[in-house]
Amino acid sequence: MKNKITSLFNIKYPIIQAGMVWCSGWRLAAAVSNAGGLGIIGAGSMYPDVLREHIQKCRKATDKPFAVNVPLLYPNIQEIMAILIAEEIKIVFTSAGNPATWTNFLKEKGITVVHVIANTKFALKAEQSGVDAIVAEGFEAGGHNGREETTTLCLIPMIKAAVKIPVIAAGGIASGKAMLATFALGADAVQIGSAFAVAEESSAHPNFKEKIISSAEGDTKLRMKKLVPVRLLKNEFADAVAQAEANGASTEELAKLLGRARAKLGMFEGNMQEGELEIGQVSALLDEIKPAATILNEIWGDFLAEKEKLQALKF
Amino acid sequence: MKNKITSLFNIKYPIIQAGMVWCSGWRLAAAVSNAGGLGIIGAGSMYPDVLREHIQKCRKATDKPFAVNVPLLYPNIQEIMAILIAEEIKIVFTSAGNPATWTNFLKEKGITVVHVIANTKFALKAEQSGVDAIVAEGFEAGGHNGREETTTLCLIPMIKAAVKIPVIAAGGIASGKAMLATFALGADAVQIGSAFAVAEESSAHPNFKEKIISSAEGDTKLRMKKLVPVRLLKNEFADAVAQAEANGASTEELAKLLGRARAKLGMFEGNMQEGELEIGQVSALLDEIKPAATILNEIWGDFLAEKEKLQALKF
Repeated sequence: MKNKITSLFNIKYPIIQAGMVWCSGWRLAAAVSNAGGLGIIGAGSMYPDVLREHIQKCRKATDKPFAVNVPLLYPNIQEIMAILIAEEIKIVFTSAGNPATWTNFLKEKGITVVHVIANTKFALKAEQSGVDAIVAEGFEAGGHNGREETTTLCLIPMIKAAVKIPVIAAGGIASGKAMLATFALGADAVQIGSAFAVAEESSAHPNFKEKIISSAEGDTKLRMKKLVPVRLLKNEFADAVAQAEANGASTEELAKLLGRARAKLGMFEGNMQEGELEIGQVSALLDEIKPAATILNEIWGDFLAEKEKLQALKF
Repeated sequence: MKNKITSLFNIKYPIIQAGMVWCSGWRLAAAVSNAGGLGIIGAGSMYPDVLREHIQKCRKATDKPFAVNVPLLYPNIQEIMAILIAEEIKIVFTSAGNPATWTNFLKEKGITVVHVIANTKFALKAEQSGVDAIVAEGFEAGGHNGREETTTLCLIPMIKAAVKIPVIAAGGIASGKAMLATFALGADAVQIGSAFAVAEESSAHPNFKEKIISSAEGDTKLRMKKLVPVRLLKNEFADAVAQAEANGASTEELAKLLGRARAKLGMFEGNMQEGELEIGQVSALLDEIKPAATILNEIWGDFLAEKEKLQALKF
C-alpha cells in the first residue's frame, strides 16, 4: 500500500533523509534511496561543480529516486538550478528562502518540489507557490530553525490545519516511536536528519559522529537568534556564543564570532573545539554509528511494532 | 479497561489537569474530576488558609479523586504539608524542588506522590525517592521549565528509557491527536495545562483567557533563563524582558524587572500589559472558552477517533 508521500516520490517507505550540510553527499543519499527511503544530496555545502559530481555519482550508485536540497539563499543559486535541470533531477527540496521565487521554474520542468517551513505563514506561501508537499520542521531540529520556536508536537497539527498538500514532519525524529507520534499528529512522512548524520555513509567527520553519539540531553541549544537561529552542539565555540549572547552581543559581534567556514571546520574537518556543530536535540538519543540501511530498517520496523502496541491499548 | 495511571488514581480517563498558579482552584479541579479526569488544585499561588478553603470546597463539589500540586520551594512548605495531611489529601503532585525532601513523609501517610521533572537526572532522583509516577514536562509547556529545553517529543522516550514507574506526558498537549502522539512515545497519561487554563471554571481572569485564545504561533517564548526559565505570553512586560535579555541583562536586573506579584497581576487581576502571563506554546491552537468537561470529553473522543484512524493506515 502507498500513501501520499510514497506515491509522490515513488519510494517504498515514507522516510526521507534530510539534506544536511557536510553530511549528506552522494554516498548517504544513495544508501538511503537504495534502502527504500528518499535520499537527499545537500547542496548547501557544495560548490556547483561539487554538486554536479555528487549527482552523477549518486545516479551511478542507485537506480531509485533521490532528491537535492537547495537553500534558496545560496549565492550561486542560478548556477545550481541550471545544474539540477541539466542533470535531470526529478525531486528538489527548497529551503531558507521564498518558495515563490523558484517553484514555477522547477514545476515547469516537471520537477516535484518540496519546501521546508517552520511556521504557518510560509506553509501557506509554499502551498500558494504550487509546491507538491512541505516539510514542517520543529524547534528540536538541527541546523537553522524557525524564529517562532514551535516544537514538532505543536507545529504539525497547526500546519495540517492550514494546508491541503502533504506534510512531512521533521525535528526530533530518530525512532519508529517518534515517527509514529508524528503520524498520530497527521504527518504523511518524516524527514530524519541527525540519525542519518551519524550513518556510516554520512560524510560528517568521524570526530563529529563520535561527539554526536556521546552527547547528552541539554547539549544542543538554539543559538545565534539575532542572526539566523541555529541549533548548536555544545563545544568551545558554542560556549563562546552562549557567553556572548548572555552579555548582549550584537548581530555584528555574533557574525564576527561565527566568522567563515566554521561549519565545515567542525562537521567536515573534525575540529571539535572551534567548529560550528549543527545537530538536532534528538542526538541525545543516538548512541551508535550504523549503515544508513540499518538505521532506516530499524526505524521502519520499530514504527510498525509500536503501531501494533498502540493498537493493542484498550480503554 | 484500566491502565497504570487510571488505576493508580482511580480515575476514568488518563487525563490530568495541571496544577496551575492563578488558574486551578477548586472549581476547575472539581469540574475535571467530576468529568472523569484528575483535577488538581494548584497550591503555588495560594496562602495556606486559601489552600485549605479550596480543598474543603473541592471535596464538597466532587466525590471523585482530586490532587494538590505543591511547588517544593514554596516558602510556607511545612504549613502546606500539614494542611494536606489534616485535610486527608490522597494524591500530591510535587514540583520545583528536590523530591527526596518530602516524598517519604507523604508516602508514610499513605499518600500517592507524583513529581514533575524535565530531565532524566530528576526523573531518576524522583524514582529513587519512591514517588509513584512522574510528570515529564517538555519545552513547550507553560510556566517554569527545564534548562535543557528538551521538547516533549524528545523527552518522553528519554524518560521512559530511564525509569520503570509510569510517565505522564506534559507540554504541547491540548488535543486527542497530541495525546495520542505522547502515547505513541510511551506515555501512560497526559497532564494538560493551557487547554484547562481557558476552561470556564478556571480562575484565570477573563482578559487572560481571551488573550490566550486569540494568541498566535510564536507568541510564547521561554524567557528569564538566567533566573528560572519561564514560558511567557507576549505583552509589554514580556517584550521588556526580551529587550533586557537581548541587551545582556544580569540575573539581578531581571529579578528587578520581574518584581513581585506580577503573575497575579496578569493572570488573576487581568492586567494584560504589565502582568506576567504564563502559558504553553499550544495556546496558539486554542480558540474557545468551554466548560472543563467539554474540553476533557472532546480530547478523549478525539484521542479514540485518531487512534482508529492511525490503526486504519496500511503500508
